[in-house]
Amino acid sequence: MTLHVGMLVFPRLTQLDLTGPLEVLHRVPDAQVHVLWKDTSPVQPDGVPIGIVPTGALSSAPRLDVLFVPGGFGHVPLLTDDEVLSFLADQGKTARYVTSVCTGALLVGAAGLLEGYEATTHWAYMDLLPMFGARPARRRVVIDRNRITGGGVTAGIDFALRVVAEIAGEPVAKAIQLGIEYDPEPPFRSGHPDVADADAVERVKRRLADRIAESRAQIERGRARRRGG
Amino acid sequence: MTLHVGMLVFPRLTQLDLTGPLEVLHRVPDAQVHVLWKDTSPVQPDGVPIGIVPTGALSSAPRLDVLFVPGGFGHVPLLTDDEVLSFLADQGKTARYVTSVCTGALLVGAAGLLEGYEATTHWAYMDLLPMFGARPARRRVVIDRNRITGGGVTAGIDFALRVVAEIAGEPVAKAIQLGIEYDPEPPFRSGHPDVADADAVERVKRRLADRIAESRAQIERGRARRRGG
Repeated sequence: MTLHVGMLVFPRLTQLDLTGPLEVLHRVPDAQVHVLWKDTSPVQPDGVPIGIVPTGALSSAPRLDVLFVPGGFGHVPLLTDDEVLSFLADQGKTARYVTSVCTGALLVGAAGLLEGYEATTHWAYMDLLPMFGARPARRRVVIDRNRITGGGVTAGIDFALRVVAEIAGEPVAKAIQLGIEYDPEPPFRSGHPDVADADAVERVKRRLADRIAESRAQIERGRARRRGG
Repeated sequence: MTLHVGMLVFPRLTQLDLTGPLEVLHRVPDAQVHVLWKDTSPVQPDGVPIGIVPTGALSSAPRLDVLFVPGGFGHVPLLTDDEVLSFLADQGKTARYVTSVCTGALLVGAAGLLEGYEATTHWAYMDLLPMFGARPARRRVVIDRNRITGGGVTAGIDFALRVVAEIAGEPVAKAIQLGIEYDPEPPFRSGHPDVADADAVERVKRRLADRIAESRAQIERGRARRRGG
């Protein structure tokens, strides 16, 4: 039986949020991956000069077994985008797994799918999760019932191997891990504020401060609109 | 001063070989990333249903500071492709760094750029490196003078952070590592044949045996042609 994996893409997504999990998930036997946006013209990820061509439009997606949402600065306008939020809310009702990496969790939350769930997101955005009734959990991958959320960007690889273990079993996940030679050796201890140099933390926090404020304001806008509507 | 990073793409590349390093390298201040193929129509990676749109044609690339070659099953026909090998050989003469991930090393080798160098590639393809006069080194990232090669697929992230430390310094590399939350937690010990279950190793070796034989035959064909020509 085909396992339908639906991965949202959007302008200014962080491409590795998508492409890490994509490399893992497409290797699952019987998985059919759908890369979905409003239309099928190439989507420009944030900062990188490649276009990504979706496989289909949101409106033409089949019922998905796994719903996946990546993050990136482009999540901000989508926090109040009816077409995207309706798509997520609708597919989220029947998907076996509702999943995200990085700030994709904020979109899952905005679609009403994290209320009462433990979840994670990029470390710099953790404080925004309670705005959706989610409980932030400081783990790299968080599984709460059928919600599976991963931390920032590269967490998508750990995340996806955990998803594979859930949907196809550990032997399949282990063979995929070996095929993609996932035996990481980070050159520095700098992958999380708990272990990084204060200088690096300061640098990244400063760069992200305005972006986080933008997300927060947009989440508030979405709430006000729902209260008004 | 702009730092020109040129990344080869080609049909049936392993997209994460490219997209992992891309996510890291584009974050280097002053880096301009060129994603290059023979033409600029979308390239189909191996197994995944997204097209990747290059930024320019090989023939229009500027002199590159960093030359980068990803791998994937699509490397096989390129082992005897004059346009691609001439491009690599030519840019390799003047690039500050000649680099690869996964089976991209075989293309760098076929372009004559690994003769007398230590190098690495995907674990299953290590035995092919001596066919180019390279010395296989069983490390995840191998730096020998200005050749920097990474192991299979996910090694590209470790690789790229090492490249950034070389070209832009450790503080920049550490800030990027923190931004992409690279604090890996592989769910299994299955990322290399030295640590994986015998069953997983068998499974992956069996799946790759014909592919490796194809690469070897194509490398032989290239050699015979050069001897004849």
